[in-house]
Amino acid sequence: MATVGFIGVGNMGGPMAINLVNAGHQVKVYDLSPDLVDNVVKVGAVAAASPQEVVKDIDVLVSMLPSGKIVEDLYIHKERLLASISASTLVIDCSTIAPENAINLALAAKEKGIVTLDAPVSGGVGGAVAGTLTFIVGGEAQAFEQARPLLMNMGKNVFHAGDHGAGQTAKICNNMLLAVHMIGTAEALQLGVDNGLDPKVLSDIMLQSSGRNWSLELYNPFPGVMDSVPASNDYNGGFQVDLMNKDLGLALQAALKSQSATPMGTLAKSLYSQHGRQGWGKKDFSSIQTWFKKVLNKNGAN
Amino acid sequence: MATVGFIGVGNMGGPMAINLVNAGHQVKVYDLSPDLVDNVVKVGAVAAASPQEVVKDIDVLVSMLPSGKIVEDLYIHKERLLASISASTLVIDCSTIAPENAINLALAAKEKGIVTLDAPVSGGVGGAVAGTLTFIVGGEAQAFEQARPLLMNMGKNVFHAGDHGAGQTAKICNNMLLAVHMIGTAEALQLGVDNGLDPKVLSDIMLQSSGRNWSLELYNPFPGVMDSVPASNDYNGGFQVDLMNKDLGLALQAALKSQSATPMGTLAKSLYSQHGRQGWGKKDFSSIQTWFKKVLNKNGAN
Amino acid sequence: MATVGFIGVGNMGGPMAINLVNAGHQVKVYDLSPDLVDNVVKVGAVAAASPQEVVKDIDVLVSMLPSGKIVEDLYIHKERLLASISASTLVIDCSTIAPENAINLALAAKEKGIVTLDAPVSGGVGGAVAGTLTFIVGGEAQAFEQARPLLMNMGKNVFHAGDHGAGQTAKICNNMLLAVHMIGTAEALQLGVDNGLDPKVLSDIMLQSSGRNWSLELYNPFPGVMDSVPASNDYNGGFQVDLMNKDLGLALQAALKSQSATPMGTLAKSLYSQHGRQGWGKKDFSSIQTWFKKVLNKNGAN
Amino acid sequence: MATVGFIGVGNMGGPMAINLVNAGHQVKVYDLSPDLVDNVVKVGAVAAASPQEVVKDIDVLVSMLPSGKIVEDLYIHKERLLASISASTLVIDCSTIAPENAINLALAAKEKGIVTLDAPVSGGVGGAVAGTLTFIVGGEAQAFEQARPLLMNMGKNVFHAGDHGAGQTAKICNNMLLAVHMIGTAEALQLGVDNGLDPKVLSDIMLQSSGRNWSLELYNPFPGVMDSVPASNDYNGGFQVDLMNKDLGLALQAALKSQSATPMGTLAKSLYSQHGRQGWGKKDFSSIQTWFKKVLNKNGAN
Repeated sequence: MATVGFIGVGNMGGPMAINLVNAGHQVKVYDLSPDLVDNVVKVGAVAAASPQEVVKDIDVLVSMLPSGKIVEDLYIHKERLLASISASTLVIDCSTIAPENAINLALAAKEKGIVTLDAPVSGGVGGAVAGTLTFIVGGEAQAFEQARPLLMNMGKNVFHAGDHGAGQTAKICNNMLLAVHMIGTAEALQLGVDNGLDPKVLSDIMLQSSGRNWSLELYNPFPGVMDSVPASNDYNGGFQVDLMNKDLGLALQAALKSQSATPMGTLAKSLYSQHGRQGWGKKDFSSIQTWFKKVLNKNGAN
Repeated sequence: MATVGFIGVGNMGGPMAINLVNAGHQVKVYDLSPDLVDNVVKVGAVAAASPQEVVKDIDVLVSMLPSGKIVEDLYIHKERLLASISASTLVIDCSTIAPENAINLALAAKEKGIVTLDAPVSGGVGGAVAGTLTFIVGGEAQAFEQARPLLMNMGKNVFHAGDHGAGQTAKICNNMLLAVHMIGTAEALQLGVDNGLDPKVLSDIMLQSSGRNWSLELYNPFPGVMDSVPASNDYNGGFQVDLMNKDLGLALQAALKSQSATPMGTLAKSLYSQHGRQGWGKKDFSSIQTWFKKVLNKNGAN
Repeated sequence: MATVGFIGVGNMGGPMAINLVNAGHQVKVYDLSPDLVDNVVKVGAVAAASPQEVVKDIDVLVSMLPSGKIVEDLYIHKERLLASISASTLVIDCSTIAPENAINLALAAKEKGIVTLDAPVSGGVGGAVAGTLTFIVGGEAQAFEQARPLLMNMGKNVFHAGDHGAGQTAKICNNMLLAVHMIGTAEALQLGVDNGLDPKVLSDIMLQSSGRNWSLELYNPFPGVMDSVPASNDYNGGFQVDLMNKDLGLALQAALKSQSATPMGTLAKSLYSQHGRQGWGKKDFSSIQTWFKKVLNKNGAN
Repeated sequence: MATVGFIGVGNMGGPMAINLVNAGHQVKVYDLSPDLVDNVVKVGAVAAASPQEVVKDIDVLVSMLPSGKIVEDLYIHKERLLASISASTLVIDCSTIAPENAINLALAAKEKGIVTLDAPVSGGVGGAVAGTLTFIVGGEAQAFEQARPLLMNMGKNVFHAGDHGAGQTAKICNNMLLAVHMIGTAEALQLGVDNGLDPKVLSDIMLQSSGRNWSLELYNPFPGVMDSVPASNDYNGGFQVDLMNKDLGLALQAALKSQSATPMGTLAKSLYSQHGRQGWGKKDFSSIQTWFKKVLNKNGAN
């Protein structure tokens, strides 16, 4: 069992840290919000008063933060936390950020002899709580093998995508594809319904045919087709449109950098941007189904 | 065992008819091309000299034809075959055509007391040969139950999508979604590769994550990732771009009729139309992967 | 001066017929709605009790109808009006319909020795009233020259696009391009406003730069930038979203027929289809500006 | 007449500096390439050995550089040129860069009491040579008025778009709209041609109708329709695809920042990215017309 520091214990980081405690690790936590820290302390973690205190005498540091700017500010620019971290501590950043940010962190850390991994996750809050997350990891193979047991305490799949930044790149590609088949699924279902099909029957047929995809199989966006998904709960819970927009933004940044053409991904981004602007930002991303629906006319005259 | 007439024994219809012969049915076949007829006669079918001869004294008529116009011309307008069909014969049209064409056939047949089903298939030439097709059926429930055993001699999945035309509508929705996730998969793989990932590693990760879909799982479009798919055979074999364009055209027609919005599907259609125009019409539809690739510059000067 | 029959005197046909009366022609009118006929009779036209009565003893027949099916039903299938038209009568159909419908009419007419032109218009209700329409004409050059003076009584520009159907094709291409630059203009203006620009200043700059286009110049979609346009009148009046959707549907049909790739046009169609479904069908097509706007959040929690 | 420093005298900056010399200003120039400096020295400018030497004893500094990173490195980070500039010198940066870069420059300059303007241009190399550029300026009104006469020596239109960065934002919006109507024009022309129209006739019709736009009017992308445009010169000269891709990249960055939806602009970006990847990067951006063309089949078998 290891001594683990954990920075950022919100919706995702909180349950991840709790799973580490439950697995028998000694866990020190820090967050700007004391309430979030309390949630983890209740199950056996120790509270730290500052990032600098968290990183004292630990084997591994895990961070889970909302943006690349915050990650770089914490480790490199403002908080300069790297200066306080021992070279024997393995740093695992689980934030979803641009590959560039992950590479910047890795290079700055390397100058001080510190080894880092970028390890963004897939699986959402549900997966974080259940300990069934997928970790998509970038960095050196040896560090990856060292981190694997700890990551398996928080998830059930761990992949080594490649060098520093590769974990971020792979996650970005995956989530872009997710957005594409979610919207594709929503429009196929609505096209069927508009032409007289039952959405449940059409879903069953496509699940057994070449239209099959994760959105259709586990996350049907049409209300009433599947129990226990956001579509059947007024699109509450799940993965927010705002977060999908964040990930699609990272995908576009990557595409701009490599001058890749991503017609489906950028169209998905435009539709999700508009969907967010129309007020759906805090709803689940499968609510894009409502985009396709027919509503009443604005004009009393028709 | 039944006496079955079969019209249209090309790439798809030929192996389907052979599977009916092999299942023990008495099969009479007709096609404009005598060579195609011979292929089925060799395994035990009987050749008919005309459509009218095929439909004499049969329990079931199966047709597999290339377009809605040809189907309507055969049954209703030019050949007026419905006039020669007994009311006790069940007509199963397996062609992929517009729902309107299927409904026109059903209504014209009903006037003469003949019952029809639209039963387009999914699974391609490989599925036709192996007898593993999926049939997506529209029409009355009783006729569907009557047809089921015969369809199971040619396939392994049979779905009742709804009333006349519903089989066509469901197939169209499915194939539109297939086109969307195939292109989405191709662009996600290229985005990853452009940013340093290995296409096989990225594919494995996305298969275990929310990007998972049929294209990625069974039909990876990136050369070398998967054996035995068209991508690893210079995009030969498989499902031609021209045929995907035909199905996407039917999807757009359906969307125009119902005034449905299908941004992903219509973008897929535009990209596949252009891809066909660039000379890829006879290649497999996963060749859209090449659309995303970087090539040499036109201009010697750079 | 000629004796002119006119069928279809609604929003467009009504003012066009009135302009013919005002130019000194003898005009006989027919419409399913007697009220619409009255509007033209008031200024000096004669009412006809049936299409057959309209076409008696006239030099020219003008029709202005809402769809290709109605045009074909009137002239060829149901009403079979061609049978009652003299070979000396020039038939000018100003309806916006598919090129196929126009060609079908031309061929059926030719069998009876009747000459037709397809002459769809651009310029809207305002242009119809002011007599400033543009006519885009398909058919033989001689008939075009014969029709020109009469068309100039209803418009100010008359183009000969080519053979039968070419008038329709040209109009379809034009209106697809219009939809594309209208949406492009709306999104450029919103992008500027979202980044701190004044929409009037940005419009002025783009009008003097390479972004210039008809939508920006004469029909600015941003409320308050330009007086006397629908955007400054709550998007009332003008060219309805439903009508733009009809024209974009014709463009897609043409593209499907020729297997042309039209990525911008089909995206425009998807956005206008969705816009219509969201209740904007009876509003002006520049109301697509509202699609881009930021609105309040659905979820009280944020 | 003023004493003007000029940094960056390539394709654009070179002729701009020459026009300043010709207008009677004293001009000092610097560029990494001595050959480019020579071109301007030949007409009467003075060469400077370094950026620091250029900025000594001048009234105005003009810079024309290829990217925001280079601009920031020159003025702020690496070269720290701001430290050598007198507070009485007006800095006019004509580079096309992100609004953020322009704002960063303005803020860093302000700390040293230096006033800047962002003044990107429209009009291309031709406009630079002819002195007919359009300047789209961001910054304070007083500085704008001070710069105006000098800018009018290099162009014929000068706009004040708003505060610092607004010049860049307005240019970005304009060029995004330009890309949209260029592609829209290309696809409308090809759709017409595919359906039997003459591209010149169709262009004439649309120019007099609501499809009219700058691309159609001054820059027709269909070969042979218009003399003296790149389309009639094998798409050589003009505004390179690579540069359009740069500007569309800036537009996407701006849209990501403001979470604006730009479906047409992002589709244009994807198509231009792919077009560049297919080897057209150094050709004129109207070469997107070739994207729509039908070519021979890859597969000998058809």
